[in-house]
Amino acid sequence: MGIGKKLLLSGVKPTGRPHIGNYFGAMKQFVALQSEYDSIFFIADYHALTTLHDPVKLAEYTLGVALDYLAIGLDPKRALIFKQSDIPAHTELAWIFNCITAMPYLLRGHAYKDAEAKNEEVTVGTFDYPMLMAADILLYDTDVVPVGQDQKQHLEFARDTAEKFNRLFGETFKLPEPHIVSEVAAVPGLDGRKMSKSYDNTIPLFADDDEIERLVMSIVTDSKGEREPKDPAADTVFALHRLVSAGQLDELKKRYEEGTIGYKESKEILAENMKKFAAPLREKRRELEEKPEYAKDALAQGAEVARKKSEEKMKEVRRKVGVAL
Amino acid sequence: MGIGKKLLLSGVKPTGRPHIGNYFGAMKQFVALQSEYDSIFFIADYHALTTLHDPVKLAEYTLGVALDYLAIGLDPKRALIFKQSDIPAHTELAWIFNCITAMPYLLRGHAYKDAEAKNEEVTVGTFDYPMLMAADILLYDTDVVPVGQDQKQHLEFARDTAEKFNRLFGETFKLPEPHIVSEVAAVPGLDGRKMSKSYDNTIPLFADDDEIERLVMSIVTDSKGEREPKDPAADTVFALHRLVSAGQLDELKKRYEEGTIGYKESKEILAENMKKFAAPLREKRRELEEKPEYAKDALAQGAEVARKKSEEKMKEVRRKVGVAL
Repeated sequence: MGIGKKLLLSGVKPTGRPHIGNYFGAMKQFVALQSEYDSIFFIADYHALTTLHDPVKLAEYTLGVALDYLAIGLDPKRALIFKQSDIPAHTELAWIFNCITAMPYLLRGHAYKDAEAKNEEVTVGTFDYPMLMAADILLYDTDVVPVGQDQKQHLEFARDTAEKFNRLFGETFKLPEPHIVSEVAAVPGLDGRKMSKSYDNTIPLFADDDEIERLVMSIVTDSKGEREPKDPAADTVFALHRLVSAGQLDELKKRYEEGTIGYKESKEILAENMKKFAAPLREKRRELEEKPEYAKDALAQGAEVARKKSEEKMKEVRRKVGVAL
Repeated sequence: MGIGKKLLLSGVKPTGRPHIGNYFGAMKQFVALQSEYDSIFFIADYHALTTLHDPVKLAEYTLGVALDYLAIGLDPKRALIFKQSDIPAHTELAWIFNCITAMPYLLRGHAYKDAEAKNEEVTVGTFDYPMLMAADILLYDTDVVPVGQDQKQHLEFARDTAEKFNRLFGETFKLPEPHIVSEVAAVPGLDGRKMSKSYDNTIPLFADDDEIERLVMSIVTDSKGEREPKDPAADTVFALHRLVSAGQLDELKKRYEEGTIGYKESKEILAENMKKFAAPLREKRRELEEKPEYAKDALAQGAEVARKKSEEKMKEVRRKVGVAL
């Protein structure tokens, strides 16, 4: 890892196939960030366990994230890539944070309140999630964490917890800063709402050509006829062109406004460009899938480095709280 | 460790000097139990951290428990003795249990409800305590846990959690049984209430002669005169005689009932016997205190064995929940 570079850390919960919203919203940036920062990208399998109690799926999703990351170009030689459950210090530090955190403070957590509001059976893990996330971040003296709007509170939890610990036991943890990802317009899904697995409106990043075609053709548009002028800013198809049709954008815009393109043709162009964009990523992932040992070895090697780093920090932490003799 | 013997496990929270109530209520039995069972006696420093945020005290109390245990005759060659914070599997397994436990279930916990009722600032650690305790117990395939009346719920938590895990992920954890300690009459404190640190009415187990004398002479009695008949069953001094004045009990009982002994004389006899009882324990502890490396080494060696055992179990657990690839 570089000298003098700031450390960036990002964790992802393994929850299944990533979609192009995930890619353009976060994953693509990671590839750029790994040269700008020393970086840690970890797979938060112990976070996923708060709601996923299917071991076959969890293992599949976890390996899946590793394959996804390697396929898009994250490089285990430049970034530290590992899975959370390989590093016992994460849960140990989360426990220590539990011990200095007041109940009412944590009951404010969004994820917990959301789940409660939906009348879901909330697990203690869902409630305690922010403390594990604080541990994830603080364990490595992280400088910056890329955050979306909905994760801001978690970084606040981590900062508050670091401050509380430092106040009680002396300066130990660095206060992480948010890394505001350069404004990417939110990627819309097939129905025009934000692309999200929970809306079932996604285009999977590693979809094959048939799936891409079928999904793109199913995008919801208004019912303007082929020869009517259209507002590109109000159209989901056009919003997706922005991601994969760079060279044709001006022309498409013109044709939209002039009323010389119908939605069907626009979708056909989008499907072609989407297929061109997806093919090399999908190809790369398929290669990696065929030799899963490569991804597993990369995770194991990452874990070894992360274990050493985290164990060093934990030695300091244990001494500070008084459990080391 | 023996073959075919059942495994008994007991943890103690390091909270300061033990008193004779602790000794006759639990610690003394441990010494007998270590030949009857394969046994684990661990120091629950990560439980203590839920409420104690003074690192100097926590370290002192933790080493103190090790010295206490060795002084009363627990033998690291026969029993496994270690401290919780040396074994990362305890907090890791507690997290896994968090993920399969519903919030309302844990909100029923006594310790949490008690602390809330007292309007204390309850930490998340206090709330989550039963899950760490379940991990402590289940990690080692424990058969029996010595329990007092007030710890019954914790064993229930551990049993429920084992059942829930086994149901979700397949047979993994043994259901522990309570070991009902042979009925020792509760040891009364100086004021006649149950001897307890929270009542400030204790006689420390390793008190020196002056302290024993001073404390015994301060025991609260009724105001019957020297020559009045007294009811031994209603007197705190007599209750303590039962613990340390074995050879003289019949005679003392007779003199109480006849009215031929005053409380002052009874206390003087008690103080003498208490000093005789305490001297060898105190002497042994002093020797151990002078070479703390012995106790620290014993804990380190115990930790090594416990780490191996727990890591083996965790491999199975991680595979079952799906975080092992």
